[in-house]
Amino acid sequence: MSILVVGSVAYDTVETPFGRAERVLGGSATFFAIAASFFAPVNLVGVVGDDFGDEQMEVLRKHGVDLQGLERSAGKTFHWQGKYSFDLNARDTIRTDLNVFEFFKPKIPAAYRRCEHVFLGNIDPVLQRDVLEQVEKPKLVVCDTMNFWISGKPEELRKTLARVDVLLINDAEARQLSGEWNIVKAARAIRALGPRALLIKKGEHGVLMFSDEGSFAAPAYPLEDVFDPTGAGDSFAGGFVGYLAGAGELNEAALRRAAVMGSTLASFCVEAFSVDRLQRLTRAEIDERFRLFKRLTHFEAI
Amino acid sequence: MSILVVGSVAYDTVETPFGRAERVLGGSATFFAIAASFFAPVNLVGVVGDDFGDEQMEVLRKHGVDLQGLERSAGKTFHWQGKYSFDLNARDTIRTDLNVFEFFKPKIPAAYRRCEHVFLGNIDPVLQRDVLEQVEKPKLVVCDTMNFWISGKPEELRKTLARVDVLLINDAEARQLSGEWNIVKAARAIRALGPRALLIKKGEHGVLMFSDEGSFAAPAYPLEDVFDPTGAGDSFAGGFVGYLAGAGELNEAALRRAAVMGSTLASFCVEAFSVDRLQRLTRAEIDERFRLFKRLTHFEAI
Repeated sequence: MSILVVGSVAYDTVETPFGRAERVLGGSATFFAIAASFFAPVNLVGVVGDDFGDEQMEVLRKHGVDLQGLERSAGKTFHWQGKYSFDLNARDTIRTDLNVFEFFKPKIPAAYRRCEHVFLGNIDPVLQRDVLEQVEKPKLVVCDTMNFWISGKPEELRKTLARVDVLLINDAEARQLSGEWNIVKAARAIRALGPRALLIKKGEHGVLMFSDEGSFAAPAYPLEDVFDPTGAGDSFAGGFVGYLAGAGELNEAALRRAAVMGSTLASFCVEAFSVDRLQRLTRAEIDERFRLFKRLTHFEAI
Repeated sequence: MSILVVGSVAYDTVETPFGRAERVLGGSATFFAIAASFFAPVNLVGVVGDDFGDEQMEVLRKHGVDLQGLERSAGKTFHWQGKYSFDLNARDTIRTDLNVFEFFKPKIPAAYRRCEHVFLGNIDPVLQRDVLEQVEKPKLVVCDTMNFWISGKPEELRKTLARVDVLLINDAEARQLSGEWNIVKAARAIRALGPRALLIKKGEHGVLMFSDEGSFAAPAYPLEDVFDPTGAGDSFAGGFVGYLAGAGELNEAALRRAAVMGSTLASFCVEAFSVDRLQRLTRAEIDERFRLFKRLTHFEAI
């Protein structure tokens, strides 16, 4: 039941109205791996530079993340710098130094190739397909992407999507990818490209899932203190894929619980900078917040 | 169990990417009354000009709306003209002709004064309090307001809110009224002004309710064809107050079902111009969509 994640491992410099964090642990694979580690073992494929610290490696190791696939290259680790205003749904990228990530070619260690649950973080869709070529027979392929690839490599992205079971994107990306403003129409167009299920992430407004059995809506947890939204989407993905891997089921009921579990992990992620909150999270806290999500959304039939 | 609504009755001219409607029936009290009429008898207090047509009166009468309180003044009926872009959450007001509505002083007919459920549509907070002076002992006072009164008459609005049980506003208004960006903090600050429950309407992103028993989140129904959002908020209010009046309960479970019933009526309202969809709606259709809301949000505990 172990999970394979391919994506970025990075240093983030983040400024929010509530504070600033300098060169802290970030990256899509990092957030995903720690969030997913509460449910199933995680195998990580990524690349870091020779500046990447033992302390950061240790954070991942402590969560049982297998780092055999974390390549170390000569050069610097991917660095992203961003700034949020009070409207935490919008952010400005101040600086992106791809560094060693620019030449990243995912090599899947032999021991990872039988992973049945695969998360393709937001990288070049050509590389996402390279990963799928190297794995044996995944039961579930979940994929993230972004506006950069939707506009820059639309044909390659389509080829990748044809091999994907679940796509996770935000509402603006769904509109861009489909050319449809209406979200229901956008979802139908995107699912026709391959993904059996589409999850549209709307930040503080929650998530909409579209599958063969219709639509499912889950809110974001209304938090009094949102500190730093960086990594929320990848923590969502980690909770989503982690839950499915741990449960060993892929039916509609499991997908819905997985979406709520994704929202649960995302809600913790944003409570502190970097992976600080995820690091000190317990399974009991996760289960308690999942129960609060149930309470938040429950109403009786008439 | 009859309901008193005070608000505007208007002609609307609306342009959306999907069409244009000229001088069609609109106004907050109109949408509210028709939506609420599916659950309980509605008594309407408002004003129209001598241009207001019998055809429009008949639309309201057909829904059993009592029009004893609908004053007819010399002059023209309130006329609003607006335009929506594809992002139906945002609209431009092109023209507001208050006409007879400018001098509206609500006079509550004797027969209405014992109404236990009162909806104060979006009018001057001084007039909203005038209405409360004229009713005997309401069990539930629900109030709407807008940015114009929040910035223009803040002290008067506070005096009104102190006498209100439930406030319905949108997220931007909640932020403006409280001075807090975070919605949870905004809700706490607003509830401290008087309302026991606060419902924050977020258009296509649904509604958040804050009460003594915590928070409740309901999505908007994901519709493939949203034709005209005009009146959605007032239809929400009509479904909300209507359900509570019909059910005769005011506990948390009833408030939650009422919020979903509000979303149900709003989801029909936006399917056509003016009150066209509400007019040909049946109780069976309402109940069926309420069930779909249950299905849309349901997930099992872990």
